[in-house]
Amino acid sequence: MKKILVVNGPNLNLLGMREPEIYGKETLADIEAKIAETACELGVDVEFYQSNCEGEIIDRLHDARGKADGIILNAGAYTHYSIAIRDAISAIELPCVEVHLSNVHAREEFRHKSVLAGVCKGVICGFGGESYILALKGLLKIV
Amino acid sequence: MKKILVVNGPNLNLLGMREPEIYGKETLADIEAKIAETACELGVDVEFYQSNCEGEIIDRLHDARGKADGIILNAGAYTHYSIAIRDAISAIELPCVEVHLSNVHAREEFRHKSVLAGVCKGVICGFGGESYILALKGLLKIV
Amino acid sequence: MKKILVVNGPNLNLLGMREPEIYGKETLADIEAKIAETACELGVDVEFYQSNCEGEIIDRLHDARGKADGIILNAGAYTHYSIAIRDAISAIELPCVEVHLSNVHAREEFRHKSVLAGVCKGVICGFGGESYILALKGLLKIV
Amino acid sequence: MKKILVVNGPNLNLLGMREPEIYGKETLADIEAKIAETACELGVDVEFYQSNCEGEIIDRLHDARGKADGIILNAGAYTHYSIAIRDAISAIELPCVEVHLSNVHAREEFRHKSVLAGVCKGVICGFGGESYILALKGLLKIV
Amino acid sequence: MKKILVVNGPNLNLLGMREPEIYGKETLADIEAKIAETACELGVDVEFYQSNCEGEIIDRLHDARGKADGIILNAGAYTHYSIAIRDAISAIELPCVEVHLSNVHAREEFRHKSVLAGVCKGVICGFGGESYILALKGLLKIV
Amino acid sequence: MKKILVVNGPNLNLLGMREPEIYGKETLADIEAKIAETACELGVDVEFYQSNCEGEIIDRLHDARGKADGIILNAGAYTHYSIAIRDAISAIELPCVEVHLSNVHAREEFRHKSVLAGVCKGVICGFGGESYILALKGLLKIV
Amino acid sequence: MKKILVVNGPNLNLLGMREPEIYGKETLADIEAKIAETACELGVDVEFYQSNCEGEIIDRLHDARGKADGIILNAGAYTHYSIAIRDAISAIELPCVEVHLSNVHAREEFRHKSVLAGVCKGVICGFGGESYILALKGLLKIV
Amino acid sequence: MKKILVVNGPNLNLLGMREPEIYGKETLADIEAKIAETACELGVDVEFYQSNCEGEIIDRLHDARGKADGIILNAGAYTHYSIAIRDAISAIELPCVEVHLSNVHAREEFRHKSVLAGVCKGVICGFGGESYILALKGLLKIV
Amino acid sequence: MKKILVVNGPNLNLLGMREPEIYGKETLADIEAKIAETACELGVDVEFYQSNCEGEIIDRLHDARGKADGIILNAGAYTHYSIAIRDAISAIELPCVEVHLSNVHAREEFRHKSVLAGVCKGVICGFGGESYILALKGLLKIV
Amino acid sequence: MKKILVVNGPNLNLLGMREPEIYGKETLADIEAKIAETACELGVDVEFYQSNCEGEIIDRLHDARGKADGIILNAGAYTHYSIAIRDAISAIELPCVEVHLSNVHAREEFRHKSVLAGVCKGVICGFGGESYILALKGLLKIV
Amino acid sequence: MKKILVVNGPNLNLLGMREPEIYGKETLADIEAKIAETACELGVDVEFYQSNCEGEIIDRLHDARGKADGIILNAGAYTHYSIAIRDAISAIELPCVEVHLSNVHAREEFRHKSVLAGVCKGVICGFGGESYILALKGLLKIV
Amino acid sequence: MKKILVVNGPNLNLLGMREPEIYGKETLADIEAKIAETACELGVDVEFYQSNCEGEIIDRLHDARGKADGIILNAGAYTHYSIAIRDAISAIELPCVEVHLSNVHAREEFRHKSVLAGVCKGVICGFGGESYILALKGLLKIV
Repeated sequence: MKKILVVNGPNLNLLGMREPEIYGKETLADIEAKIAETACELGVDVEFYQSNCEGEIIDRLHDARGKADGIILNAGAYTHYSIAIRDAISAIELPCVEVHLSNVHAREEFRHKSVLAGVCKGVICGFGGESYILALKGLLKIV
Repeated sequence: MKKILVVNGPNLNLLGMREPEIYGKETLADIEAKIAETACELGVDVEFYQSNCEGEIIDRLHDARGKADGIILNAGAYTHYSIAIRDAISAIELPCVEVHLSNVHAREEFRHKSVLAGVCKGVICGFGGESYILALKGLLKIV
Repeated sequence: MKKILVVNGPNLNLLGMREPEIYGKETLADIEAKIAETACELGVDVEFYQSNCEGEIIDRLHDARGKADGIILNAGAYTHYSIAIRDAISAIELPCVEVHLSNVHAREEFRHKSVLAGVCKGVICGFGGESYILALKGLLKIV
Repeated sequence: MKKILVVNGPNLNLLGMREPEIYGKETLADIEAKIAETACELGVDVEFYQSNCEGEIIDRLHDARGKADGIILNAGAYTHYSIAIRDAISAIELPCVEVHLSNVHAREEFRHKSVLAGVCKGVICGFGGESYILALKGLLKIV
Repeated sequence: MKKILVVNGPNLNLLGMREPEIYGKETLADIEAKIAETACELGVDVEFYQSNCEGEIIDRLHDARGKADGIILNAGAYTHYSIAIRDAISAIELPCVEVHLSNVHAREEFRHKSVLAGVCKGVICGFGGESYILALKGLLKIV
Repeated sequence: MKKILVVNGPNLNLLGMREPEIYGKETLADIEAKIAETACELGVDVEFYQSNCEGEIIDRLHDARGKADGIILNAGAYTHYSIAIRDAISAIELPCVEVHLSNVHAREEFRHKSVLAGVCKGVICGFGGESYILALKGLLKIV
Repeated sequence: MKKILVVNGPNLNLLGMREPEIYGKETLADIEAKIAETACELGVDVEFYQSNCEGEIIDRLHDARGKADGIILNAGAYTHYSIAIRDAISAIELPCVEVHLSNVHAREEFRHKSVLAGVCKGVICGFGGESYILALKGLLKIV
Repeated sequence: MKKILVVNGPNLNLLGMREPEIYGKETLADIEAKIAETACELGVDVEFYQSNCEGEIIDRLHDARGKADGIILNAGAYTHYSIAIRDAISAIELPCVEVHLSNVHAREEFRHKSVLAGVCKGVICGFGGESYILALKGLLKIV
Repeated sequence: MKKILVVNGPNLNLLGMREPEIYGKETLADIEAKIAETACELGVDVEFYQSNCEGEIIDRLHDARGKADGIILNAGAYTHYSIAIRDAISAIELPCVEVHLSNVHAREEFRHKSVLAGVCKGVICGFGGESYILALKGLLKIV
Repeated sequence: MKKILVVNGPNLNLLGMREPEIYGKETLADIEAKIAETACELGVDVEFYQSNCEGEIIDRLHDARGKADGIILNAGAYTHYSIAIRDAISAIELPCVEVHLSNVHAREEFRHKSVLAGVCKGVICGFGGESYILALKGLLKIV
Repeated sequence: MKKILVVNGPNLNLLGMREPEIYGKETLADIEAKIAETACELGVDVEFYQSNCEGEIIDRLHDARGKADGIILNAGAYTHYSIAIRDAISAIELPCVEVHLSNVHAREEFRHKSVLAGVCKGVICGFGGESYILALKGLLKIV
Repeated sequence: MKKILVVNGPNLNLLGMREPEIYGKETLADIEAKIAETACELGVDVEFYQSNCEGEIIDRLHDARGKADGIILNAGAYTHYSIAIRDAISAIELPCVEVHLSNVHAREEFRHKSVLAGVCKGVICGFGGESYILALKGLLKIV
């Protein structure tokens, strides 16, 4: 059975409570529940992790080496500047899909650039919680 | 029954014949067949269009106003500079998903910027022909 | 009798139907009717052309060489990047006035730059359909 | 009866005497006379002001609040950097048309940018003294 | 008794009348009255000056040399480009605090840069009229 | 009784020990004592937090949601690049004042830009420890 | 017998009629006749195509796959921005020589950049109609 | 007898009092006296003008048309941004020499750029008050 | 006996396991063993620290104040953006040598810039594990 | 009999020995022999010069004034920054063709810009040693 | 007796023969003769040097250490990029005046920047051969 | 026995005499003596070369092909712009270490960029004369 690690970065723990006009009303728990449900249907194992700390996200990614088969990563604001997370993705040599709830390209200009996308397999943004479901399905076609 | 228009832009007619290390071996017909199959399963109507001409793509998008419920658009190279197609997407007031076969962020720098993404609902790239299938599923959650 | 060609570029065929808060409620036909009326009063012949295709606009401009006395051109989004249309304006050696319905300078930054203006005689923007009327009057002072 | 204030900025007092290949041979007085004539025909009151001093132009614009119905402004070189005049235009909440005698887009690159245009209703350039006449007509359609 | 000069630049004379959603409803006189009141409590002398003219602001700053103990300066739009006022602040060798009513960093990008801040002692923005009161208190800790 | 959280970021724990010509001789404890004293006089509750870790600062800001009435934040070097802290400020929907001891605009150019200021209510810099006192007073006028 | 396709882009149909001080007095027909003559001498087959439309040029290039042995391309203004034509050149996997009549490096700065050159075999500019002859000879050394 | 107008811009009235390590200890009066002395020796008439106001400098330059034979201009900080003064220099069609006391190229980067130099005959900087003497001698070789 | 702290930043814990074509096959433990050996020969005490967390690296650097005599720092990806670590280096007032295994200048452009180098004593890159040995030797010449 | 000087710049003396995958296996002597042969056929005199020194290349170009009828110049890396060689080309007033063996536009970005091309008659690149032959033929059409 | 070294850089040996509309008709010998004459009147020793080679100019500057009292340097095109000559000027610790015949600020934009000016005492440009005379006089006021 | 060539570029001949606060008091001869001593200990042959001329440095590097085993290069100011030296390093296919006495990253911004580093094996800066010793030791680990 394939194992997928779903990592959420800074401020995503406040999902559903924060700026619902941008991020929707679903909480992170709601979204994780839906992902788990889909994973179940698809016969794949998912594990969830959230942290506001760049270093902890890197630690968690490292930890997935040789254990997980793929990564779904919403690195939140770290997407735009964390070369350290970028290096972690390269280092663990697992296929990674970058995910965003909102369409980052329709927001502030500094959100258009991702320093992570270049080392990911694919990018999905703009579908709210559904972005993760699509990422899971897409990732399974690759791993 | 929902109607989705799938538009492919310049050079995508050569898919499968051209640079397979980047774009894969599937032809556009192969991909369209798979999309049609998925559409059938999902109970949605899909129509396909391909053109190498910016103006014809705009004409086709205009034509979808009031007829289609959403657009899946792989504008190829026009993605990076066609403000005219961007304006067409705004003008027709239909939800649009931007799609790419390859992960454009892992290629030349001029492919990282999309002038269309800001007026689309979401963006999906890097999953080969599967990008369209994911886009179709994502779009149906929105329309 | 002087002859003026009025060329409208991409998406202007949707005028009145599209984003009325930016472009107003008049259709292109409404505007052309008003221009024709003014032309009649001023004793000048006007011809109208609209296309979403950069190449067709160039063809139409070429065709005006030696036949028209001046051009009123709203190149829509092509204004911002079509060096090919710029070259066409230079090539036909007819006085051209660049026109916009909205005040492009009060919109997105990428709309502030015109690659055409440098080879036109003048620029008028922000007066809705009236921009064309003013352009016609201004052009007649020059030709 | 509508009241329009016509403000001319730095160096425009030398019009007709200075670089006639760019600015033409008409003096500012000639142009103001023509504007007055047109205003008379259109049944509108015009007042004229010229100053080389950024601060005085701001004072004059302020003074028009609640007295004039619209502004025609050729801010000369201040067009390109006077954020203070921009703020004055915003502050007085009157419709303003930016005017230039020459086609600034066909001149040095630093003249292509206007810091004022974003808070004006429209822009007209390139028609010599006629630019003001067109601006007056255009402004009257708006106020 | 310490003497503080409070200088306000272009368009601040319209305070309370202009764009209240940005600048609030207090007039400049209201704010000056509050500053005077606070100054009185703190046992310090304040003098007020407002001008829309860059040159007059420089003259007034020069005049404060050897007479005032510090400057509170809201240079309005001149903040963003007047190197001449910057030089005046350096030249008079008095501690100066840059003040803004609104949070300039939450507005247009061209308002984020101050050419004056580098030669001031401190900067305070975003507290409406209270910005001046805080500046006065801060300045008194320094002079 | 109002509650204000005072957050200090990286390297501020070394205050008074480090580069006194820039940051002064007061330690962070000295400054916090003074803030507490002022808070006492003003009848407001203050709590203090310092961390060198971006993620912990975000955690602490999240924790203040629904508990504090406002934030005083000196994010140190994170001011210049932590979009994650910026998002945290937006997410918790509490008024925040950005504070700096030194006048960052008189230092290296990379310190002139703040990615946080745009989502704060106000900014105060250059008054040493007094910057916090002024921020506290300013914040109380807002909350 | 080798087959070479000679493609001319926008406005080159006006050659000889348009701005002769830049482009010379030869018409496109004149140049094509000379190329044909040289081709004859060199024992190679040449075919000519001209279009003002980006999409049609792409179609024509596609059509040359498996039929022609090499391409001589003067893409006119499209040289500077048509990533779609660039992709077409890559896609058809035929050696291509970029040609210009004038020395584009001695003209406006926006003509110095070619988005096509990076996927061509070589570039020749500045020799008027002779540029094509040299390109033909050079191309035959490669194919 | 030739007539030369010597114009000094903002903050130069404080010369000798202000930042002597940069500008030296001579007052403007001292420098003007030396220029007058040299002018006397060279048999040329000099007139002096100083203002902190951009508009007044423009007025004074205009006034020199047809009266003076050349201009020596130290526009102080206006050198770096006053396109209005640039236009005034062009407009009056008199040879102008740009002068600076200090070597502006050895100071802050924003002082390296002059918007005036392009319309002046020559530039002299770095010789303190002697810069004016050299400018006078140089100008007399030209007029 | 001199004490040197050797700090390794994000992803360096994966050394030897990760991308050996860039970083070589030695593990961090291998490299630390070699450094310890050299330190032993040179009669100097070395201590090792690795963390993926920016804040923890700062904490560790702070802790070295007054205890260590110098720092060898491979900040990994933080090299390119962590102004917070830069400030920590300044704050602890110990000589620091920046080290990289690979020649960062021969890799992606974003790796060419170091925000730390300006506050370090020296930089050594490109010698694999040997970079640390050279840094140790170089540092001992300085401390 | 026409005289053409063929100048080769830095590192071209190593041709054939150096990076053959970029520059081919022909030595400079091989290429010069072929050029001489063609020159012989065309009835034109060629002279060859190679130097690694910018100043010597300038000296050699100067020496060609009034003696040669045209220049073929491969300035190697100096192409990208030697404004001094650019000035030499202008100064000697002889038609010059810029030549490169490789297609510089398909290599590192810093090789795309030529500071020489603007003062040359034409540019030819990408045909290996054949580039010189084409340049000779093209130059003879011009001189 | 003071000793001044006058150094001329690339292409200045062609003075009078080359582009006289920019550089005038005087040869370098003419100018040197005039400088010598003025030097004689002023009781100062001048020596002249010209080279087209950056390295030789550096050698000559080095040689002047401890022998000359000042340098007049027209580095020609090297002015714009030779950091090596800049370092030489710093290294020899002699006052240097940068000189240009033409007003470089009225020419191509790449001639506006000098990498040398920041380490010179002053700059004089635009007076033809007289620039050197003024530089000599100015330099003597400083040395 | 391995052979290492040590090349020093412009102005390094003045070492010890020039700006000792940046470059130290050791002369180049002193440093070369120390390198020779270390080389002797390490059983490696070193040869020294210094020139102020870019072209001569290239010649010397060429000459080392097939004779030396590695290069230690302090190209002085040429480091920042000599693409010709960069090409020479590539061309000779010998491992090269870039060396600087001072920490270039703590100096002017234009010294932060090296055009050579990308084709070197490693870079060492900031250790004064010791930089060369470290480079020698590092280079011997590689060759």
